[in-house]
Amino acid sequence: MLKKLAVGIDIGGTLTKVGFVDISGELYAHLDFPTQGYPKVDDYLLVLASKIQYLEKQLSCDYEMMGLGIGAPNANYYRGTIEHAANLEWKGIIPFVSKIKSHFNVPIYMTNDANAAAIGEVVYGDAKKMRDFMVITLGTGLGSGIYANGALIYGHDAMAGELGHISIDKEGRLDGLGVKGGLEAYVSSTGLKRTIFELLSDSISDSELRNYSFNNLHGEDITRAAEHGDEIACAAFEVTGKILGEQLANFVAFSHPEAIFLLGGLAKSGKWIFEPTQRHLEANLLPYYKGKVKLLPSGMIDKNAAILGAAALVWNQQNH
Amino acid sequence: MLKKLAVGIDIGGTLTKVGFVDISGELYAHLDFPTQGYPKVDDYLLVLASKIQYLEKQLSCDYEMMGLGIGAPNANYYRGTIEHAANLEWKGIIPFVSKIKSHFNVPIYMTNDANAAAIGEVVYGDAKKMRDFMVITLGTGLGSGIYANGALIYGHDAMAGELGHISIDKEGRLDGLGVKGGLEAYVSSTGLKRTIFELLSDSISDSELRNYSFNNLHGEDITRAAEHGDEIACAAFEVTGKILGEQLANFVAFSHPEAIFLLGGLAKSGKWIFEPTQRHLEANLLPYYKGKVKLLPSGMIDKNAAILGAAALVWNQQNH
Repeated sequence: MLKKLAVGIDIGGTLTKVGFVDISGELYAHLDFPTQGYPKVDDYLLVLASKIQYLEKQLSCDYEMMGLGIGAPNANYYRGTIEHAANLEWKGIIPFVSKIKSHFNVPIYMTNDANAAAIGEVVYGDAKKMRDFMVITLGTGLGSGIYANGALIYGHDAMAGELGHISIDKEGRLDGLGVKGGLEAYVSSTGLKRTIFELLSDSISDSELRNYSFNNLHGEDITRAAEHGDEIACAAFEVTGKILGEQLANFVAFSHPEAIFLLGGLAKSGKWIFEPTQRHLEANLLPYYKGKVKLLPSGMIDKNAAILGAAALVWNQQNH
Repeated sequence: MLKKLAVGIDIGGTLTKVGFVDISGELYAHLDFPTQGYPKVDDYLLVLASKIQYLEKQLSCDYEMMGLGIGAPNANYYRGTIEHAANLEWKGIIPFVSKIKSHFNVPIYMTNDANAAAIGEVVYGDAKKMRDFMVITLGTGLGSGIYANGALIYGHDAMAGELGHISIDKEGRLDGLGVKGGLEAYVSSTGLKRTIFELLSDSISDSELRNYSFNNLHGEDITRAAEHGDEIACAAFEVTGKILGEQLANFVAFSHPEAIFLLGGLAKSGKWIFEPTQRHLEANLLPYYKGKVKLLPSGMIDKNAAILGAAALVWNQQNH
């Protein structure tokens, strides 16, 4: 019998991840390659197409390619375009879907990576039966995908769910889009690092994190320091969880989700980020929401969540 | 021919407004009566039923009653209950819809007043062709009704859209639900008065508003003072519009509406509130939203908007 497979493509600022996935979430073949180094998008697409063909040869089963699902920064679901993506080499508005159509004669769907993660949570993760929930991706920045009434909120022009750029303090830190006090400047892997450096400058406590440059400091280093009882690391998680919990409480007043899923690099810090976030979320919820909103880790296998989320776009269109 | 009419019932803290409305928004008969004075909800319902019967006798056309639409504070659309409403005499959870069913054998729908206003904007106002928009009601408090993908966002337990209680400043003013820095403590008719009193205490400027007590100061007095060039009144509108504009810009990043409608007492101040709100909204929008989100007055005849919004619940269920 032909195995029905979707191709999930996650286009990140650094790496592009590609994989063949079935509807149960099993990954049949996958690889990644650098996104950078192709100033012309057409050259990148030739490489992407050849990588997919290479993966096809690896497949040991008979299969039918059901479609391509693409998660990309600043992707516009309605128009199939990538628009003014700060972290990609291709400037302006790229008609990505119409270009890739010349390589593949299957349905092609594209949205931004956080929206793909939310759809992935429905298809592969723990939101299978949920109609109202949110996914917050905590990586270099903060992304969000929001479901209400059983459907992803795309908004009037497909740019809904940019919660990383809401301003929480008009005198605060600058984020990547120039927003003063933008949430992702505090709550993301980068935001956590910025908080570490703020605390290192404010305090005189000893800390193992005083041995790292900003560029060499990674999330795992901060988690490890917290596990060693490092005061600065523990305080930074508390500050980050407080801001995230307070803001999630505000988000609940918007769409009243059943659950909020955290995903991405910072979420991998586990209890260090979940515990303070949960505590401050609960403390700040309005009376009628208290005890009713679940804060959960993503139900997708985190390592391949980006590919799964992108592949889920195909199943979501065809099976739901 | 039988005229098809819906009964719109708006239950406010002070007044209950009732009217018979057709699908074009024409009001055939209406009245209001005090909501207070009935410690038992059953007594109130007897009066409400008799008022509706009284209105029926006033109708000079042959008609068919298509249903009852009810807008009420803290109304739960899913359960047909009014739950812990701070401004009503009935405490706890009131099974309002099941109680009123003993009086009327027609379909009955109930939601909170701001949600009813949003549905009213679709049925009777200027959102007839919109799929993504928000209605903000600015009265004693701040209410919100949010459409995404052509449907009202009710949320997991029908309590979505409580934007009056998001916290904008953890050191700020207390709102009616005990939230520090709750938005409605700044942006509402009451919020504007509080800002007037803050400015009167901070400044030494002369102002005609120094002749009013807090309880005797009304929105019209503040608008009139602004029209006279009163510094304090003008500054209060600027402060209020700044806070509202900044927060609306955050809301846009959530659901990316095509338009935001303002309704209610404070919206009646016209340019005094719209101009600063529009200016600060636009200044704070993310690049890809700039120039694309309309700030509009409600398209419903404001005087009867509450009855129209409630009646719209009936048409929205039956005709859409």
